[in-house]
Amino acid sequence: MSRIDGRTAEELRPVTIERGWSKHAEGSVLIAFGDTRVLCTASLTEGVPRWRKGSGEGWVTAEYAMLPRSTNTRGDRESVRGKIGGRTHEISRLIGRSLRAVVDTKALGENTIVLDCDVLQADGGTRTAAITGAYVALADAVAWAQDRKLIKPRAQPLTGTVSAVSVGIIDGVPMLDLRYEEDVRAETDMNVVCTGDGRFVEVQGTAEGAPFSRSELDGLLDLAVAGCAQLDGAQRTALGR
Amino acid sequence: MSRIDGRTAEELRPVTIERGWSKHAEGSVLIAFGDTRVLCTASLTEGVPRWRKGSGEGWVTAEYAMLPRSTNTRGDRESVRGKIGGRTHEISRLIGRSLRAVVDTKALGENTIVLDCDVLQADGGTRTAAITGAYVALADAVAWAQDRKLIKPRAQPLTGTVSAVSVGIIDGVPMLDLRYEEDVRAETDMNVVCTGDGRFVEVQGTAEGAPFSRSELDGLLDLAVAGCAQLDGAQRTALGR
Amino acid sequence: MSRIDGRTAEELRPVTIERGWSKHAEGSVLIAFGDTRVLCTASLTEGVPRWRKGSGEGWVTAEYAMLPRSTNTRGDRESVRGKIGGRTHEISRLIGRSLRAVVDTKALGENTIVLDCDVLQADGGTRTAAITGAYVALADAVAWAQDRKLIKPRAQPLTGTVSAVSVGIIDGVPMLDLRYEEDVRAETDMNVVCTGDGRFVEVQGTAEGAPFSRSELDGLLDLAVAGCAQLDGAQRTALGR
Amino acid sequence: MSRIDGRTAEELRPVTIERGWSKHAEGSVLIAFGDTRVLCTASLTEGVPRWRKGSGEGWVTAEYAMLPRSTNTRGDRESVRGKIGGRTHEISRLIGRSLRAVVDTKALGENTIVLDCDVLQADGGTRTAAITGAYVALADAVAWAQDRKLIKPRAQPLTGTVSAVSVGIIDGVPMLDLRYEEDVRAETDMNVVCTGDGRFVEVQGTAEGAPFSRSELDGLLDLAVAGCAQLDGAQRTALGR
Amino acid sequence: MSRIDGRTAEELRPVTIERGWSKHAEGSVLIAFGDTRVLCTASLTEGVPRWRKGSGEGWVTAEYAMLPRSTNTRGDRESVRGKIGGRTHEISRLIGRSLRAVVDTKALGENTIVLDCDVLQADGGTRTAAITGAYVALADAVAWAQDRKLIKPRAQPLTGTVSAVSVGIIDGVPMLDLRYEEDVRAETDMNVVCTGDGRFVEVQGTAEGAPFSRSELDGLLDLAVAGCAQLDGAQRTALGR
Amino acid sequence: MSRIDGRTAEELRPVTIERGWSKHAEGSVLIAFGDTRVLCTASLTEGVPRWRKGSGEGWVTAEYAMLPRSTNTRGDRESVRGKIGGRTHEISRLIGRSLRAVVDTKALGENTIVLDCDVLQADGGTRTAAITGAYVALADAVAWAQDRKLIKPRAQPLTGTVSAVSVGIIDGVPMLDLRYEEDVRAETDMNVVCTGDGRFVEVQGTAEGAPFSRSELDGLLDLAVAGCAQLDGAQRTALGR
Repeated sequence: MSRIDGRTAEELRPVTIERGWSKHAEGSVLIAFGDTRVLCTASLTEGVPRWRKGSGEGWVTAEYAMLPRSTNTRGDRESVRGKIGGRTHEISRLIGRSLRAVVDTKALGENTIVLDCDVLQADGGTRTAAITGAYVALADAVAWAQDRKLIKPRAQPLTGTVSAVSVGIIDGVPMLDLRYEEDVRAETDMNVVCTGDGRFVEVQGTAEGAPFSRSELDGLLDLAVAGCAQLDGAQRTALGR
Repeated sequence: MSRIDGRTAEELRPVTIERGWSKHAEGSVLIAFGDTRVLCTASLTEGVPRWRKGSGEGWVTAEYAMLPRSTNTRGDRESVRGKIGGRTHEISRLIGRSLRAVVDTKALGENTIVLDCDVLQADGGTRTAAITGAYVALADAVAWAQDRKLIKPRAQPLTGTVSAVSVGIIDGVPMLDLRYEEDVRAETDMNVVCTGDGRFVEVQGTAEGAPFSRSELDGLLDLAVAGCAQLDGAQRTALGR
Repeated sequence: MSRIDGRTAEELRPVTIERGWSKHAEGSVLIAFGDTRVLCTASLTEGVPRWRKGSGEGWVTAEYAMLPRSTNTRGDRESVRGKIGGRTHEISRLIGRSLRAVVDTKALGENTIVLDCDVLQADGGTRTAAITGAYVALADAVAWAQDRKLIKPRAQPLTGTVSAVSVGIIDGVPMLDLRYEEDVRAETDMNVVCTGDGRFVEVQGTAEGAPFSRSELDGLLDLAVAGCAQLDGAQRTALGR
Repeated sequence: MSRIDGRTAEELRPVTIERGWSKHAEGSVLIAFGDTRVLCTASLTEGVPRWRKGSGEGWVTAEYAMLPRSTNTRGDRESVRGKIGGRTHEISRLIGRSLRAVVDTKALGENTIVLDCDVLQADGGTRTAAITGAYVALADAVAWAQDRKLIKPRAQPLTGTVSAVSVGIIDGVPMLDLRYEEDVRAETDMNVVCTGDGRFVEVQGTAEGAPFSRSELDGLLDLAVAGCAQLDGAQRTALGR
Repeated sequence: MSRIDGRTAEELRPVTIERGWSKHAEGSVLIAFGDTRVLCTASLTEGVPRWRKGSGEGWVTAEYAMLPRSTNTRGDRESVRGKIGGRTHEISRLIGRSLRAVVDTKALGENTIVLDCDVLQADGGTRTAAITGAYVALADAVAWAQDRKLIKPRAQPLTGTVSAVSVGIIDGVPMLDLRYEEDVRAETDMNVVCTGDGRFVEVQGTAEGAPFSRSELDGLLDLAVAGCAQLDGAQRTALGR
Repeated sequence: MSRIDGRTAEELRPVTIERGWSKHAEGSVLIAFGDTRVLCTASLTEGVPRWRKGSGEGWVTAEYAMLPRSTNTRGDRESVRGKIGGRTHEISRLIGRSLRAVVDTKALGENTIVLDCDVLQADGGTRTAAITGAYVALADAVAWAQDRKLIKPRAQPLTGTVSAVSVGIIDGVPMLDLRYEEDVRAETDMNVVCTGDGRFVEVQGTAEGAPFSRSELDGLLDLAVAGCAQLDGAQRTALGR
């Protein structure tokens, strides 16, 4: 049984990771999961928000947004509506938590890194592409700071690597890395964020149609862990490790 | 090894469900999970939002909020700040999805039900108490509408029951239904929404400290499923089923 | 001529004042005027707003809000609309002024007390119940601070007591403590805030229908003063004075 | 004992009412109470807000605002802050209620009148000047509509006249029409809105310092009624009645 | 070929400049270009915004707004809508830039001047009247500060004078200082801000209909320069120079 | 005298125009003026805003925004701040007016085209690149609609072509197409929008330092007209004309 684009159920879409996309940011990556393209920039500034001053610890946060015509029908700009929608909030928070899971804020010192993930073109999996790309941008920003001695010698702000992938059940079959057409048809939709050593940072599963059973959940987790392992490889290749 | 309040790891806090708390709402419940108290009201009105008119289908949505001094230190009102925070958005969306999972919107007909979950006192688990209480308020509102023939005879808008509980790993031990002091100490925090037949509607797990392993995840899911089964019983008792 | 609930024109609804309703707040009261129920919490924090720093004086302020389904038909949340309505502003300001009338801010020292009055169920007189309940919560918060020596020994931040009641003219007859059905029928509607010694802190009368005469005004004031005296008694009983 | 500007306690400041100040509005008045100057325009449009359509009744509403430098120190613009303050809301609502008290909305037919009261220079009593001036602008707008047959022949949308004045107690003495310097020193501050026949539309008294007694209240009401009678005369003169 | 009000193509409307219109502001001018009337106030305060502290330099900024019924049909208040429109932003920024072009912020010292330009009645050319009037208010505020020694002796914060006028092409003919009816018919609309010595501070031309040629542009600039020279004379007369 | 990047004063930066950048939009262009990169999408939908319904005419509008890290230091997101800044408003309006200058809305029929111009990387001239790129996206969207018969046969919604360029005076020398470092040093800054036949749609010149003379203005216009002619060529090449 083949998928809309000929992939097997356990196959990722082609992944590309282009580093140094922007000349201004300390780290910047244009990541593609198939037709989904997200520009991830990491902006590192010295100093931390007021509530963290004097703690000796840094801060990492994220903001996610979609360009109005990144989708099939144009969406209103959140800046024009004057407020951020619930979905945007939710995804920004997810990205921030996911990246903080591999950051040692003490080792980072009193520096702040903001990860901006702007979806230029959407075709499913924008949040998972954002997390996967943001990790690479983060790694570049950390290296940039180490070069400039903004971080103490021998301090290692990154405690691991992190990537994310979506999985879902379509017509009863668990599938990896859903495209948009698949996503809207999925009975269950799950986003999984893993570290490079295969442990979980976030697991978010939602029954879009009927509730799902424990064995379905297990099947999805298996797929996701395998997908993240491949993404981890793509990140390492991009970073030249 | 006992917990702060003497419970065992797999024990819920005392649960009380008080129906008919408000004289105005079509369904209203004051639910308590220990010191956490949430007022859940279900407001049923005829008609649906514009984008759904003529579809023959109803709509169910939810809004969650905390009173400013429901917590240990007073929080600013979101109405005064002029915008809703990401956490509030996220939980409102979670409650809405969870309840819709057991609603047949065709059977509901063109009626709208808004579930308001206002936290009067918080001590951990406010979102899971809200879902569990909102289900009972929803059931009362549906019965109210059936009595008034606002819903077609023999139509069954509710396809099942739903409840929710939090679980977490503290000092390496998976525990059920965390209080606030436990929640802040948890290495992993998970909210699980189950139907009465033990399947999953939502699974949201987050590593607050170190990433968690597959076996830890399995242990948490086991605890949560057992906890939801008990909550399902409490709901049935409250509803006199 | 009897009223909808059998009261005489000069009779209050049953008043209950439940102290210590919340485990978090320094003072907390659930007050009921008949079916009107308002949760009043007093949050005391050390320090004052920036514009008052170094003055040696404290600050007392209030915020009023209604839960969306506290009323007969559900109202939109002000947090969702992104702004506070005029009525809410007006009542919050009234409560704040009323309480400040019996506070010696010098004796309070540089402490801030925020009174949150959240209407859980509305049936007329929510602002007067809020003021009456907020006084008791305020008294508890002040006592709490005195116990903890946050206030100078022998300083008396409370210079008196304060309570409030609504009065109105219905079918030409002045009546005390209007329920919602009475309120909407009233030709004149007045809210009166009195100190325990029978003087006025606020008098707000509005002709809803025809303008009112001086003798009608006098009749309303007589009723209100008598009503506040009874409420003052209920406050004293609740406080065990 | 004379006042800051030589007036007696029961004397108004010089009042001027300049009709037809704007070439665009259906009614427009620049009113001055001493140095307080308020531009009041009445904008009449055919049709009513959606919730009133088909009722056969009209609608009258008001908006009050202060220019940023109408006061001694510049205030931020509410448009720039992005929200309207409580005081502005409160006064806008007061003006609207006061004018509606003398409008027969059935006789007005399905027309809407918006009264804009913009304070060009403030020196105490801006809300009372606004009400007094807005009445004249309203009368002109109604006459304009009658000339154009937008209102049924023989219909009389205005059922009376209305004016307003402030009174207060300073150093124990009740005084009429307070200037700003007097207003800030007043122990009690009251705004009274009367119809031309001497009845009350609104009475709003506030203890700024010590609570006030019934006899003080009576003294203030006497002063206010006499002041409104004079303002009624000024309105009639301006309207050439 | 004469214009709607009998003027020739190169003639300004009657200009009046009334200084000292407000008793509160350090500089205040009511300026009229025909029926367009703008109240311009200059508020000078010691100190500068945070980002400029310690620089030794002052700051000048401007805010423009229209009263809701300054126009033929009533516009919504931007404060009520909760946001400032693009046109308002654009004009406020234009006024600020224009005035800053003749201010030596070093000579001004760490003082801030806010120019508020509120349109009381609009009939075309509100932004150009605002700039022309604001200059006079600014000059008065600077003189006020010099009198009070808030500015160093012999420092000259004003490096020149500035005025503005609109020009446009109507039926192929370039015309000076357009009224509203002319403005809506103009094929090309241009606002020009000049210094007293005839150089340009701002040139903003827009093709409302067909694009305009270089020779049309030249004709408009000639008219505008001549118009500004006349306005410069009116400013000097008003200032008694 | 050569420029920072070796260009002569009258030379454009390298211009690239990549059509079909997005798979969703009816027209999409990634345009680069040197390091300035703007993604321009044209979204065409059937129907027009409510106020234009039944007119038989279409509508074209534009929205401009910068990604937070498109600049050298990260800027706050306007969606997060909850309001759009003046500069963004100003540029969005400029782009919309510029494109409407070459659109025959009658020929477009009741269709709406929204041009979104999102700056991915900024290095001066973002608004002129946006206009130049948006024209190409607009042309593609119009062709798309003609192919689908959404526009009447033989109707020509585009009446011409439009492009834009910045010019400025640096150290007394007029220069074309300023980079960011040049822009901040420019004494005078001008943006010029021309049609393909060399006429003007918009001319916006601002003295950043000293006012500019007529001859300086003439020199800038000469440069800009020549620059737009080159951009017109680049557009034609990209469109394969």
